[in-house]
Amino acid sequence: MTLKPYAIVAGVGAGTGAAVARRFAKQYPVALLARSPDFSRKLAAEIEAEGGTAVSYKVDVADEEDMARVFGEITQRFGTTCAAAIFNASSRPFPKPFLWQTQADVDHALNITLNGAYNFAKATLPLLLNATGGAVVPTLLYTGATAAVKANAWLQPFAVSKHSLRALVLALADEFAPQGVHVAHAIIDGVIRMPLTWIMKPLSSWHAKLDPNAIADSYWHLHQQPLAHMTAEIALRPFCETW
Amino acid sequence: MTLKPYAIVAGVGAGTGAAVARRFAKQYPVALLARSPDFSRKLAAEIEAEGGTAVSYKVDVADEEDMARVFGEITQRFGTTCAAAIFNASSRPFPKPFLWQTQADVDHALNITLNGAYNFAKATLPLLLNATGGAVVPTLLYTGATAAVKANAWLQPFAVSKHSLRALVLALADEFAPQGVHVAHAIIDGVIRMPLTWIMKPLSSWHAKLDPNAIADSYWHLHQQPLAHMTAEIALRPFCETW
Amino acid sequence: MTLKPYAIVAGVGAGTGAAVARRFAKQYPVALLARSPDFSRKLAAEIEAEGGTAVSYKVDVADEEDMARVFGEITQRFGTTCAAAIFNASSRPFPKPFLWQTQADVDHALNITLNGAYNFAKATLPLLLNATGGAVVPTLLYTGATAAVKANAWLQPFAVSKHSLRALVLALADEFAPQGVHVAHAIIDGVIRMPLTWIMKPLSSWHAKLDPNAIADSYWHLHQQPLAHMTAEIALRPFCETW
Amino acid sequence: MTLKPYAIVAGVGAGTGAAVARRFAKQYPVALLARSPDFSRKLAAEIEAEGGTAVSYKVDVADEEDMARVFGEITQRFGTTCAAAIFNASSRPFPKPFLWQTQADVDHALNITLNGAYNFAKATLPLLLNATGGAVVPTLLYTGATAAVKANAWLQPFAVSKHSLRALVLALADEFAPQGVHVAHAIIDGVIRMPLTWIMKPLSSWHAKLDPNAIADSYWHLHQQPLAHMTAEIALRPFCETW
Repeated sequence: MTLKPYAIVAGVGAGTGAAVARRFAKQYPVALLARSPDFSRKLAAEIEAEGGTAVSYKVDVADEEDMARVFGEITQRFGTTCAAAIFNASSRPFPKPFLWQTQADVDHALNITLNGAYNFAKATLPLLLNATGGAVVPTLLYTGATAAVKANAWLQPFAVSKHSLRALVLALADEFAPQGVHVAHAIIDGVIRMPLTWIMKPLSSWHAKLDPNAIADSYWHLHQQPLAHMTAEIALRPFCETW
Repeated sequence: MTLKPYAIVAGVGAGTGAAVARRFAKQYPVALLARSPDFSRKLAAEIEAEGGTAVSYKVDVADEEDMARVFGEITQRFGTTCAAAIFNASSRPFPKPFLWQTQADVDHALNITLNGAYNFAKATLPLLLNATGGAVVPTLLYTGATAAVKANAWLQPFAVSKHSLRALVLALADEFAPQGVHVAHAIIDGVIRMPLTWIMKPLSSWHAKLDPNAIADSYWHLHQQPLAHMTAEIALRPFCETW
Repeated sequence: MTLKPYAIVAGVGAGTGAAVARRFAKQYPVALLARSPDFSRKLAAEIEAEGGTAVSYKVDVADEEDMARVFGEITQRFGTTCAAAIFNASSRPFPKPFLWQTQADVDHALNITLNGAYNFAKATLPLLLNATGGAVVPTLLYTGATAAVKANAWLQPFAVSKHSLRALVLALADEFAPQGVHVAHAIIDGVIRMPLTWIMKPLSSWHAKLDPNAIADSYWHLHQQPLAHMTAEIALRPFCETW
Repeated sequence: MTLKPYAIVAGVGAGTGAAVARRFAKQYPVALLARSPDFSRKLAAEIEAEGGTAVSYKVDVADEEDMARVFGEITQRFGTTCAAAIFNASSRPFPKPFLWQTQADVDHALNITLNGAYNFAKATLPLLLNATGGAVVPTLLYTGATAAVKANAWLQPFAVSKHSLRALVLALADEFAPQGVHVAHAIIDGVIRMPLTWIMKPLSSWHAKLDPNAIADSYWHLHQQPLAHMTAEIALRPFCETW
């Protein structure tokens, strides 16, 4: 029996992760990766109830061995031809004066964002390369943030992790696009950017929140782009952001 | 009788313009603007034959009066509620040592690219503002080039015109997004960028050509983005470009 | 008699232009170009009084013929070997809603900033090329603004002109650096940037003003850089700017 | 006895580090930090022989405790008022296909470049803040690379480390400029950038090498900039680079 190509979504929380999982589940069986699988298990059940195929996996993306274990289970269940892999895990920004920060703050941010992203690329690229040559370009997507291109006071760890993620993704795009894999970085330019934002948010929280379903639609669109027409980076922001 | 919202496409040649016109004609009546209307008239006939609505208009987008005349005709025919306006006109890059260039080279590039884009914004924004508040965000799209973000030797006039176009579009996005119009700039990163390219092209001309239908799909996707999730700039390039 | 290399400064007003002229006059005879020569004539007299050599020329940099006339006078007086040429002329930003702007607003901004810069490059590059091969790298510097890299609502004409200037300068750098001329663009990131600024300025006008003498020092430093070590773009901003 | 302000240079090898140390030693006592102190000890002796003051310290900048120990010695010897701190340590780029890379490659690059830079900021900023309010703005400079803004295939670890360094430095600039410390990032745009470069280098190795003394001059110039006129990032490249 030949297995269908499938999708893998890492970092499945109630926001973007869930929306992306639902969107790709319309077309593919989906493997959902989450550190705390309570939500993703419930989501998998919902997707199955709607006629899709979804399995939730508990994993720490930053842990190489744990990832190896889980990808063993995934390939056993879904095979070795992956059509789309979306990485959505992230540390949270936590503004703090630099001289109060510790190395642990940076390590924490890098561990989830960079090491997780790195392990995810290592695990998924061989599966994505197996899907090249077909009608749809296999796609590796990463969710980034404004902090990937702008570094603000008090947010060094977050900016460091998001800049480094962007470097990883764009270098992967440079290496794997010629091999037929679409690698892309999305700059979610709609949340927390600087201390000022904490004050602004209450005034505009309703408008300033990016719609996760629209993000999922944009990711799906990137996945539909043919080889001769690929977007390596896309920025998404709400119409009313003032920065 | 209330008229349906419609789309306007300026710079309708055999490549991107035609593909965009066909894509938007699936949903909207389309007004096609071209300097030499031989092609666009034929295209309009084809769209009509397939059940769509399309009218070709001969106009020099760089000429303010000519634009006023044509937009008079367009609004009389299609009304004053425009859902999407796409600007696709451009001068061609022509590499020449700077000291051999003349002011006329710059003026020529600016005339089509910048003045045309400016007149197009002036004419379409009032019609687009009439379409705000509905399910779909009215959209003003401009086709740019790599030269909008990279300025190479021998191509001063082209780079000047594309940088200036980008400035216009991003400033329009900054002004009109809060008013409910999605303004966006597409960097078509797949053609002529530096003298070296002339040599490289024969080796890869087949692969290096962006697919106009895929560009049209990306434009359509931008048009579908909701207010809370908008991309102001998108770069598109073939998988095998090496720059 | 062999004439010494000299410097040419265009756009000599009371701020940056004057400071740059004074700084380069310490080393070179200077030709000062200004549209309204009242100030530059006085400045030339002061420089002469301090033992320097300076001549003021009345010229409209945007006017090709006027520039040809003046450069005829300059080369007759100072010879054809120019060590440094600094362009400092600019239109002023004038915030206005896009739909209230006219083509004349854009033309006005482009005329001074882009056409002036273009004529200046055409007139000075042959004289700068004559100075290559010596101890000091002949230098062509342009004063730009934040609007060269950021386009804000209501300021389309200013942003368009500054983006286009930047494209011209960086393409000139790409073409003439290999020929031994240092071409560079300075982003003066310290003044008027968005409507908000008009409100902020009274609170911080004293601190937010870049010191013209420091700009002149930075320009002089760029002029001292050797061939194997050149900066094509430099951004300068006061320590207290909050954008 | 009041001690004079002094300079600290980390990463003192035979190239940029030595040139920067010599340049700042003309004005300040200098503390030289190096992992392998053979060279820096010799350099310190030379500086002393020429009438300067220099002490070499063996330290692993990536090791927080080792840094604490060394800065204890430095402040005991030179006091707690530091005028300039320059970080110059770096991993080397080593091109390798992504799927052959290991987490250790990334950790190695991050350890020297990012952790070293972080520890250096933590140790020097309190000393630099002690020097604010005087005639010269205390300065914290970091040497970066093209890979800080461009991520190429096969060089993920190097790009990741240099992007993250840049994020750290620009966020520090954002935080400490208003407190009177000039923090800046230098993009040394003259070496290894992509696999292609390996082939190009033999053809142009002589010209393509940035002159370390010129880099030192540019760093000194940044250190001379007043508060009202600061450059947060400077790019330096040889005239003949073709990328």
